[in-house]
Amino acid sequence: MSLTINILGCGSALPTTIRNASAQILNHNNKLFLIDCAESTQISIRRANIRFASINNIFISHLHGDHFYGLFGLLSSFALTGRKSVMHIYCPEKLINMLSSPFSPVNLDDLGFQIEFHILNPSGVNMIFEDKTFQAYSVPLKHRIPTWGFIFKEKLLQRNIKKDCIEKYQISIAEIVQIKLGSDLRLADGTIIPNSELTTDPPKPKSYAYISDTLSFDGIAKAVSNIDVLYHEATYDSSLEQRAKETFHCTTFQAAENALKANVGKLVLGHFSSRYQEVKILENEAKTIFSNTFCAFDGMEIDV
Amino acid sequence: MSLTINILGCGSALPTTIRNASAQILNHNNKLFLIDCAESTQISIRRANIRFASINNIFISHLHGDHFYGLFGLLSSFALTGRKSVMHIYCPEKLINMLSSPFSPVNLDDLGFQIEFHILNPSGVNMIFEDKTFQAYSVPLKHRIPTWGFIFKEKLLQRNIKKDCIEKYQISIAEIVQIKLGSDLRLADGTIIPNSELTTDPPKPKSYAYISDTLSFDGIAKAVSNIDVLYHEATYDSSLEQRAKETFHCTTFQAAENALKANVGKLVLGHFSSRYQEVKILENEAKTIFSNTFCAFDGMEIDV
Repeated sequence: MSLTINILGCGSALPTTIRNASAQILNHNNKLFLIDCAESTQISIRRANIRFASINNIFISHLHGDHFYGLFGLLSSFALTGRKSVMHIYCPEKLINMLSSPFSPVNLDDLGFQIEFHILNPSGVNMIFEDKTFQAYSVPLKHRIPTWGFIFKEKLLQRNIKKDCIEKYQISIAEIVQIKLGSDLRLADGTIIPNSELTTDPPKPKSYAYISDTLSFDGIAKAVSNIDVLYHEATYDSSLEQRAKETFHCTTFQAAENALKANVGKLVLGHFSSRYQEVKILENEAKTIFSNTFCAFDGMEIDV
Repeated sequence: MSLTINILGCGSALPTTIRNASAQILNHNNKLFLIDCAESTQISIRRANIRFASINNIFISHLHGDHFYGLFGLLSSFALTGRKSVMHIYCPEKLINMLSSPFSPVNLDDLGFQIEFHILNPSGVNMIFEDKTFQAYSVPLKHRIPTWGFIFKEKLLQRNIKKDCIEKYQISIAEIVQIKLGSDLRLADGTIIPNSELTTDPPKPKSYAYISDTLSFDGIAKAVSNIDVLYHEATYDSSLEQRAKETFHCTTFQAAENALKANVGKLVLGHFSSRYQEVKILENEAKTIFSNTFCAFDGMEIDV
């Protein structure tokens, strides 16, 4: 299974000439999930040669413009390109009010496709999406307005049965189903062949978490425990801790501390203040606490 | 006096990798006027190195997303960069409802600067802006929803008085004021010095018109009569006249016919359908009717 992330924008509120505001495409086995949708996201999607029509799920973390102003244009362009399939949007309730208002920037009745809204739950970590191989969860964060992070996890697949064993023991279809779930095999003469001899481990499930925008708090590390790749906002360098606190954002040190506590595989910093033309200083700061840290950039592709 | 236009986007509804949707900056003696504001306009403004804070007047032709979805982000960025001065927005009334709604994408009360809205009049050509040297007019167009074009005209300046004459005839301040308005000079001995001897002509006033989106109709040529530079939508080539009619747009031929009838100085085509990667064919078609035709491109600068 493949899990990749395309960073379309990793800047904070003010877009700059090198950095758009928040948007990412998560690609799980060619199913595309859009995480946040800042202004210009549809243009970045085209520039990155990403198949527009394969997006069926959109996750909006909160209703600050730098995380959703691209949604109006994106939905309109889906309509213009003849989309018919349902679009699922996971979002704060207020977005539904906005899009359903008589003065909405987008007329939902004119789109030609249906939107199914999924209101994010303000308490606890909740599974909000599930298919055969993949799950998404929402995590309430602490920002100036209701805000959520998102966690994406592959499910543990069934065990792989060894082809030569099927022939050797003449295993039936019904038995294969059970063996893949972990059962041993009982032969006609009563002999037990242990599952470990018949199967190999499935691939380790991959996981990704998106944490932006928020104050740092204990619940973050708990929610993203052992995640493979953690994208964590680091709007400010460590010298601006007070500013981070006042604006309900994080510093590099706070992001790195959460990554360390959570024992994640890799930390990707993002949501950089427009004051940083060059972000190497942010990466270096975080590395003093969590060495496997990288700074995001627009156009970055992360293979989880 | 200088009058230039920066084309920030000249595509129609679907932005492409080479063409954003509608937005232009008109610069009159370093006063900046924004005409339409498609998604990503604020990013194009930064890329073009245009002084963001010098925009005090925004003209929105109609409420299709490809003409105003960039307004939310632009206003937010003005707020984030500490704008205090009033912003004037000339727009359809519904935009005011949208921005004043409790579910508006932008909270006007949080911006930190005031917006003065000017509702566009659905009947007749109306002056909507005026300062000492410049005027703007709205022109109702014929599109699927209420839509306006805009005409910008420099005022005729006062006559230039010749400096050597002031000394020669010992002309007083009060007399200078009258001479600049066209009066002759009466000397103490009763001699009349004709104005033509004392002054030179002021520069010819420059003018620009923005006509997008619309069906072609007789009133267009009348409204833009003798304009120096006419930006006219030509969404489609001439073979798609029926499609143009159905969608309330123009073809190249219709734009060129209006330019010819109006006796404009130069025609700039824009608002191209995303089906045209290359627009030379559109320019060539229009040139068969009106030779001084050019196709707009994103980043184009027009010196009127």
